[in-house]
Amino acid sequence: MQKVSFAEMPCPVARTLDVVGEWWTLLIVRDALLGARRFDDFKQAGIADNILSARLKGLVEDGILERRAYQAHPARYEYLLTAKGRELALVVVALRTWGRKWTKGKDSSSLTHGDSGHVVSSRLYCDDCGHPLTGDDDIRPKKLGFRDAVMPVATRA
Amino acid sequence: MQKVSFAEMPCPVARTLDVVGEWWTLLIVRDALLGARRFDDFKQAGIADNILSARLKGLVEDGILERRAYQAHPARYEYLLTAKGRELALVVVALRTWGRKWTKGKDSSSLTHGDSGHVVSSRLYCDDCGHPLTGDDDIRPKKLGFRDAVMPVATRA
Repeated sequence: MQKVSFAEMPCPVARTLDVVGEWWTLLIVRDALLGARRFDDFKQAGIADNILSARLKGLVEDGILERRAYQAHPARYEYLLTAKGRELALVVVALRTWGRKWTKGKDSSSLTHGDSGHVVSSRLYCDDCGHPLTGDDDIRPKKLGFRDAVMPVATRA
Repeated sequence: MQKVSFAEMPCPVARTLDVVGEWWTLLIVRDALLGARRFDDFKQAGIADNILSARLKGLVEDGILERRAYQAHPARYEYLLTAKGRELALVVVALRTWGRKWTKGKDSSSLTHGDSGHVVSSRLYCDDCGHPLTGDDDIRPKKLGFRDAVMPVATRA
């Protein structure tokens, strides 16, 4: 279904989607963050066996998950997040934060900060001044690539 | 290609992917944040016309983009981000922040804070204490759904 490679694009958004943009992939990462390790854990999301196998293999190849034997006879494997994979919490929590506000339904996926029970959220901030930003802030493109790129995003109705 | 509906899942991560998880959709939102408005603007990403038409239509139906006539004879339309769509900056910037660290290549997609030239980044933080979190922080599931969910994510090698 993928006609164009996102991996070679001059944009880290596109390249990240090349790694995690396949349908189901981010839900597998979500479940790994929520403690899933074994094939049967990941299956609970409702994914078909063949797709799950393919996605786990791809995530191992991309260095997101590490495959480790937890039993020798017969051989059984589990999948652990690498440092690269753990940092996808940034993406998963951003999806969750947006979805909590803009979609309706239950919420079974919250991550907390240590054993405090405090929920982890995602937020935009200014790299230089450290100021947290909201949708009402004036966020605009650095490079002007389109006809109206000088118009701040936040002023569009 | 989608066999299971993510829209009905009890998880805002899954429901957000139901809206923006189709291949190309988040790059269209990225370009809208970067100032793209018209069909030819969005085409610059390399997307085929028929897919772009379908994705724009879906984004309008989901309330992410608003379609407006900018010319009457002949009728011509442009696509503007709604408030709901603008807040997807959270997801797009999270993808970008991760991709800048974990993929190699150029970067043509940065958003800045007003006219300061300061780059906008994404970060996780604790909802209660406001503490910014990193991959080294102990982030763990709120609900224990899997066999080893008591193990903090950050302690996995």
